[in-house]
Amino acid sequence: MLGWLDGAQERQEEVARLRILVLGGDGYLGWPTALHLSRRGHDVGVVDNFVRRQYDHEMGVDSLVPITQLQHRVRIWEEVSGLKLDTFIGDLTDPVFVDNTLERFEPEAIVHFAEQRSAPYSMIDRQHAVYTQVNNVVGTLNLLYAIAERDPSIHLVKLGTMGEYGTPNIDIEEGFIEITHKGRTDTLPYPKQPGSFYHLSKVHDSHNIQFACRIWGLRATDLNQGIVYGQETGETDLHPDLATRFDYDGVFGTVLNRFCVQAVVGHPLSVYGKGGQTRGMLDIRDTLACVELALMNPADKGEFRVFNQFTESFSVRQMAEMVAENYPGATRIEHVEDPRVEKEEHYYRAAHTKLLDLGLVPHLLEPSTIRSLLAVVDRHRDRVDPAAIRPTVQWRRTASELRPTADINAS
Amino acid sequence: MLGWLDGAQERQEEVARLRILVLGGDGYLGWPTALHLSRRGHDVGVVDNFVRRQYDHEMGVDSLVPITQLQHRVRIWEEVSGLKLDTFIGDLTDPVFVDNTLERFEPEAIVHFAEQRSAPYSMIDRQHAVYTQVNNVVGTLNLLYAIAERDPSIHLVKLGTMGEYGTPNIDIEEGFIEITHKGRTDTLPYPKQPGSFYHLSKVHDSHNIQFACRIWGLRATDLNQGIVYGQETGETDLHPDLATRFDYDGVFGTVLNRFCVQAVVGHPLSVYGKGGQTRGMLDIRDTLACVELALMNPADKGEFRVFNQFTESFSVRQMAEMVAENYPGATRIEHVEDPRVEKEEHYYRAAHTKLLDLGLVPHLLEPSTIRSLLAVVDRHRDRVDPAAIRPTVQWRRTASELRPTADINAS
Repeated sequence: MLGWLDGAQERQEEVARLRILVLGGDGYLGWPTALHLSRRGHDVGVVDNFVRRQYDHEMGVDSLVPITQLQHRVRIWEEVSGLKLDTFIGDLTDPVFVDNTLERFEPEAIVHFAEQRSAPYSMIDRQHAVYTQVNNVVGTLNLLYAIAERDPSIHLVKLGTMGEYGTPNIDIEEGFIEITHKGRTDTLPYPKQPGSFYHLSKVHDSHNIQFACRIWGLRATDLNQGIVYGQETGETDLHPDLATRFDYDGVFGTVLNRFCVQAVVGHPLSVYGKGGQTRGMLDIRDTLACVELALMNPADKGEFRVFNQFTESFSVRQMAEMVAENYPGATRIEHVEDPRVEKEEHYYRAAHTKLLDLGLVPHLLEPSTIRSLLAVVDRHRDRVDPAAIRPTVQWRRTASELRPTADINAS
Repeated sequence: MLGWLDGAQERQEEVARLRILVLGGDGYLGWPTALHLSRRGHDVGVVDNFVRRQYDHEMGVDSLVPITQLQHRVRIWEEVSGLKLDTFIGDLTDPVFVDNTLERFEPEAIVHFAEQRSAPYSMIDRQHAVYTQVNNVVGTLNLLYAIAERDPSIHLVKLGTMGEYGTPNIDIEEGFIEITHKGRTDTLPYPKQPGSFYHLSKVHDSHNIQFACRIWGLRATDLNQGIVYGQETGETDLHPDLATRFDYDGVFGTVLNRFCVQAVVGHPLSVYGKGGQTRGMLDIRDTLACVELALMNPADKGEFRVFNQFTESFSVRQMAEMVAENYPGATRIEHVEDPRVEKEEHYYRAAHTKLLDLGLVPHLLEPSTIRSLLAVVDRHRDRVDPAAIRPTVQWRRTASELRPTADINAS
């Protein structure tokens, strides 16, 4: 056992120790979140159906950093830390599984990452759009019913997305906005203009969760998260077999990760359209910190609370430039036609003070962060499949071919 | 053939004649809408899966006014009017059926009533909530894809509900609101606070349809309809076998129809809570007129347009008083515990000028309207099942019994 764990175990005495289920705990963020919460002294259960790994098979792509099977990495975590993780293998769209899991684990809080989370995936064709909305909405509905029936005091921490808001021409607030109209004033849900069937599914979830809090007195925090970058956390760094995913492909890869891969393999950094699309971003380590802050400061009974979970905003063009500046070799930025339907230049100013008020100390995107990302990519450069980077899903079409040989049967 | 039809056929020369599919064309509003559009000279196809009739079997209730089978009443319509209706029997959640229907009928416009439309039904339990959201959202997604793939110029006229807005403390506008915030201004989707899993499904639809208009250039009109009363229309009156449904039960019955039944059978008129709940209302004949106005004045390519479709607002208490005043016998108003979670007294002022601007001349709720409703009920008073009127579905519970013997297996 490592030295830092003694300190961690001491800290367990100081803070509340919670029983926490992490849904989607085998995924990019779910896995490091589960480890982080475990290390911080909580009893953690991991729930997953492995569909994220199945998407890789469907698309013929793979995480750049190799990841081990869940059961194996849970064992490694116990060897490294002395801490156990419970595992529950099943699907949230199965209401019996959801209810049984809550009955067996008796969580005090649930962190819900278990949704199809790729905008391009949801835009492949009708089948993928329907799959994404049914999977995400029904899974969350089953969860809300199970919480209401088993124990309404369970705090639900649900991952939403900053993409729910779209790009309005006014400041984005955290979930709600005070509107004065014809001499009267009310605070109402912030209007949503999501940009894909995936983002829409999160808007549907938000409305459903808010309603469940109202009628059943549930307590929920909706974390409208920005785009996450990074791959290494304090816990995954302890053993190579604890690594989490790193996606760079055109469907699941996020923009900064993709630029780093393009730089390392000597491809031009492909900016969609003008590159003025501005988005909230955060370091993977801040995701873990934000989730923990939400858990340790739960919503009240009946409260539906929204935090905007990002630390800085950048345009796509700025991100490409930062990668180009920090890569030691030669790089070139290329503008490709935007496969999405979105504004390529727009106003963007979004509030994100609630997590700072709870004590978040952000890891900002500094040259050293980009260089450590580039180092991760460089270690695995032989695993890069350049063909996987190309954007294949076109928003303006109703059906896109992933690759000539793709067989679409994920749902 | 009746004399008025000659006049109608002359009018066909003056107005555009459209090929119109009416989805849910066997239902309470879908059927009279199909007849009305047929009489006005359009080529009409009726699509239905008869699930509305199945809900009656599930709940052990029936329309107060007997209704005949679709194939029979289509035949009667042809005998009475000389006009044909095409029929397509199938389910919108089956994408092959949706696509084949559009291929065969080649509609220029589609009126979409084909959703589970009862708030209490969606609140029975988890299964009914999930059924309602999946049925409504997936049916509409399949339709959007089929329109985009077959013919994006098809005008979609979709039934939404005034219940999508909830009861904000500011004026409700028609779909969008101009917001000035921190010195900047934008026109954004009106914030939604729906009050049941059914109403939520319509909010999800609205977001999905708006997005499809944006990315594929579809044209759509969302009719946010109030609560409809009445049962007789110019077309259904032509033959008893053309009658449409009249629901008074605790799950599918709407409030004014229910009060009329309670008056006729000598039960107290049951007002939920204080009865200050105020809602937009309209006469069934105005539903037909509004749908026709939307069809004859289509949305532009890429436009998502919202009309608030109601003519007057009343509180539940006012409606009960109107029925009591107009019923010749003795009636009593009783306040029962509100099974819903809603504000029992609130501000309510909602815009509804867009359909008036297109030429709507409303049938207002006058004593003669209530008396003709009471006369409909009186003709069928022997068919009333008093046990069916009782509100059985409790919003605060996660599962309600419809009746002791109810077998819930509708989905």
